[in-house]
Amino acid sequence: MRRKSFGGMQCPIARSLERVGEWWSMLILRDALAGMTRFEQFRESLDIAPTMLTRRLDALVAAKLLERRRYNAHPPRYEYRLTERGRDFRSVLLAMLAWGNRHFAPEGASVLIVDAATGTPADPILVDRASLRPLVAPDYRLAPGPAAGRGVRGRLSSRARSGLLAERGRASPSRKRAARSAPRPA
Amino acid sequence: MRRKSFGGMQCPIARSLERVGEWWSMLILRDALAGMTRFEQFRESLDIAPTMLTRRLDALVAAKLLERRRYNAHPPRYEYRLTERGRDFRSVLLAMLAWGNRHFAPEGASVLIVDAATGTPADPILVDRASLRPLVAPDYRLAPGPAAGRGVRGRLSSRARSGLLAERGRASPSRKRAARSAPRPA
Repeated sequence: MRRKSFGGMQCPIARSLERVGEWWSMLILRDALAGMTRFEQFRESLDIAPTMLTRRLDALVAAKLLERRRYNAHPPRYEYRLTERGRDFRSVLLAMLAWGNRHFAPEGASVLIVDAATGTPADPILVDRASLRPLVAPDYRLAPGPAAGRGVRGRLSSRARSGLLAERGRASPSRKRAARSAPRPA
Repeated sequence: MRRKSFGGMQCPIARSLERVGEWWSMLILRDALAGMTRFEQFRESLDIAPTMLTRRLDALVAAKLLERRRYNAHPPRYEYRLTERGRDFRSVLLAMLAWGNRHFAPEGASVLIVDAATGTPADPILVDRASLRPLVAPDYRLAPGPAAGRGVRGRLSSRARSGLLAERGRASPSRKRAARSAPRPA
């Protein structure tokens, strides 16, 4: 089945998902960030079918997250190395690691981010690099960037501007005014 | 096609993907965080087939990221509201937004996180909530948590401990010692 592409959407989240949103892709990036470079390393770590792994690796190379390099001439041998773009994806994986620990580890965390000197577990939050202030409403909000088109501007209505940044997503006053729309089909 | 489940894996990233890794799921969460609650709102925003939207919403309800609530009795009308777990996913989406802006917006950003008072764009980084220090190696590293099993401990070899936290993923010395593995199948 051919999926609908998110790549034409203006939203930066949709564009990111176009590159990493396929089942397996993020786990391949996780393993690459853990130092894996060889086809067999990924295959063993993920227990993934070789044809599927080939497809996912090719897509990550096409999206310039990985680079395919020959490391041996006779016989030819290839490895997959992260590009700067691929390495930069670690912030997304760290956020996902923290979320997974908070919500899907009833038996306790299995992977922690810890202070290397003291071993104290860290509690990851997003802040602005310059001010070090947490990126939460009402201090911060979303705003259309210079290249925003109509679709993005429409979604960034007053209601949406702080939703992604609200620590608790309480119904904003404007939500009650939202027009009634059709029910979910049966 | 039935996908392989990631839910049985111990890695918190894999467990997170089990809940949100399907095509569309993260964009539905994005829209929910922007304040959308009704089936028709999601359908219009995403231009998604109703059957697919129903399936994805049901999965997000089953994973306890959304709650389905009746807001009108006669006729019955339902809406989808974020749970605390669903709201907490915003950190992942913000990290993805920042990554998308950096790498997939050649014409300029379309959505920015800005200081609400000054309008200055923020540069999101992950820090520890208590120390406010950036979560990068060598200050921080990954460590097995109390519930880590053999698989996780194996992946958290010395090489992997700092990979996810390294700002630049340079080859670590131990990488050169990695055993040669089979080449990629032709």
